[in-house]
Order: sequence, then structure tokens, then C-alpha cells
Amino acid sequence: MQTTIKFIKQPTSEKWVEQALANLDTILLDHSHCERKAAGVALNMMFRYPSNTQLVRMLTGIAQEELEHFEQVNQHLEKRGIAMGPLSSPPYAAGLKAQIRKDEPARLLDSLLVSGLIEARSHERLGLLGTHCPDVELAKFYRGLMASEARHYGVYWVLAIEYFDKAEVNERLEELAMVESDLLANLHPEPRIHS
Amino acid sequence: MQTTIKFIKQPTSEKWVEQALANLDTILLDHSHCERKAAGVALNMMFRYPSNTQLVRMLTGIAQEELEHFEQVNQHLEKRGIAMGPLSSPPYAAGLKAQIRKDEPARLLDSLLVSGLIEARSHERLGLLGTHCPDVELAKFYRGLMASEARHYGVYWVLAIEYFDKAEVNERLEELAMVESDLLANLHPEPRIHS
Repeated sequence: MQTTIKFIKQPTSEKWVEQALANLDTILLDHSHCERKAAGVALNMMFRYPSNTQLVRMLTGIAQEELEHFEQVNQHLEKRGIAMGPLSSPPYAAGLKAQIRKDEPARLLDSLLVSGLIEARSHERLGLLGTHCPDVELAKFYRGLMASEARHYGVYWVLAIEYFDKAEVNERLEELAMVESDLLANLHPEPRIHS
Repeated sequence: MQTTIKFIKQPTSEKWVEQALANLDTILLDHSHCERKAAGVALNMMFRYPSNTQLVRMLTGIAQEELEHFEQVNQHLEKRGIAMGPLSSPPYAAGLKAQIRKDEPARLLDSLLVSGLIEARSHERLGLLGTHCPDVELAKFYRGLMASEARHYGVYWVLAIEYFDKAEVNERLEELAMVESDLLANLHPEPRIHS
């Protein structure tokens, strides 16, 4: 399984695909949480950097799209009779968040790159579901979301090079991308979008 | 100045209208923050009650609309050459938040009613701006937002009576509405939507 997704160091393993396909209901519920969390992360960044007009404008668009996707995933949950409810998070996002440096402006750069990496990985994994999911309707839905996820990591990248020197961005991205792939090197036992 | 807005105990004073009209740029910037905060509050409630399907569905719609309004307000800021940036909050929202009881299910009821009251007051005040603002374009914009704000407090009310007994809802609303009006009894010296 090869990946050509920008930013991603190691492609997702076949084991994850097998785990996801064997637990499609849980993956769909987790996906709902992911979309809501992604909207929350974009909104929190807008709160933290209210003077960065470009950031606020672009992240408003992202938050709106994540909420749209959240709504769409929830419609699929409803159609399949899956009750909405809480779900424990895999260590992935917390592991990445721990890499975000505490002081500005490093905090802004790291926040943008971590969000970009999560979007890139989501893009890759929704693509795998879109290719391998045996449920035709779900597979079509996943393929439909891929373009947005790709656009989203593009937005985070554009914001990073808007506020920081390109060489600095690339160097830090390289480091964070290694961590991102390491966090997924061992499959998390609970099926999740980022297990 | 009379109010016929549901939930609101005391109408907004003429002093607030004078203060707002004398500081339209600040009011517009504060309005931008209000819309973003309202989206954040709706999203946080969706995080806290992920199993309450009806709540999640209706608050997704509210969060989406608040983000749309946020975008629209920001376009007006840009057109008027007002830089985006932080602004201190008046004591209003924190004063209301302090009324939210800590234990469930009271916390849910209070959260819904506090959000409903803030939407009701916003509806009243945007209406006043829509009537009295000398800038024709802004006045039109404010009038256009009024219907949504009215719908939003309707949504919070519907959710309250979905999850709680109507008599309990009315009794608590009566108490919180008194606090809400008391918090605005003395005009806050800094011009804000909720000064």
C-alpha cells in the first residue's frame, strides 16, 4: 500500500484497513467525533489569534465545512441506526498535541502543522475507506469528503508559510511528520479513524 | 422604549442605544466576537452532551449560522477598514455563566436557558441597531440578522422543554431572566453588544 499524500511519512498499514472494515459502525461514530473536534480546533485557533485576519478568515471556512461533514456523518449514523454517544480517543491527537511548543510564535507554527498533518492523514484514510469499503453508499461518501480534507491541509500549510519563513516551516514539518507516523506505527487496539 | 421580546424582563435603556450609536466601530468588532463566541458555546455543548441527538442536531445548525454571521460581520469590518483584534468582554456573559449550576441535569437546563437569554437579548439589541443606526447598510444588515437570533432562542427553548418538565423550565427561566436584566441595569462604560 503506497501513499503519495503530501506531508505523510509512512503510509497507513493494511492492518488498519482490515480493522476499520471489520468495525465500520465504530469508525463512522468516531468519524463524527473527528469532524466535530476538527471544527472545535479551528474555532479555538480563531479565539487565540483574533488579530490574524487571514487565519481567522480561512479557519472560518474550515470550521464551516467540518460542521457540514459532521452533519453528513450524523445522517449516515442515523440511517444505519447507530446511536450517537461518547467514544474514547486513541492516543494519536494527544500525542501530536504534546509536540506543540508552549511559547509564541512557535505555538502558532506547531498548531498549524499539527492540524495540517491530521488533515493529511484523514485524507489518506478516508481515501482508503473510499476504495475498500464494501458498502457502496459509504464508499461514495468517503470519496466525496477526500477533496475537502486535501483542501484543509493545504489551508494549514498556506497559513504556516504566511506567518513563518518557508525553510523554518519545512524543517519543523519534517520533525512533526516523523512523530505523526511513529504514533501510528503500532495499531491501536480500538478501531478509530486514527487508530 | 418598550420590549415585546419573549424571555426579556427589562427592555434595553436608551442610554445603551446612545452609547452604541456613538461607537459603531467598536460595537461591530464586539459583534464579531459575539458571533464567534456563540458558535463556540454551541460547539462546547455538543461536546458535553454527545448522546443527546436532538441537541447535537439543532446546535449544529446554530453553530453553522453563527459562523456565517461571523463571516458577514467580518466583511463589514473589512469594508469599514476596522482591524480585527481582541476586545475585553463586559461582565454580562460571565455573570450569567456564574448562574449555571455545576451538577447535571441542572447544568444542562441552565446552559440552555442562559444561551437562550443571550440570544433573546441579542435579538432585541440588533433590532434596536436595525431601527436607529444612521448607516443604511449596517442598519439593513442588523435587521437581517434579527430573524436568526429569534430562531436561536426558540431552539434553546425547544431543547429545554425537550429534556425537562415545562413547569421546571419556566420557573428557572424566570429566575435567570431576572439576573439577566439586573446585569444590564447599569450601563457598562465600554461600548459592547451586551454593555
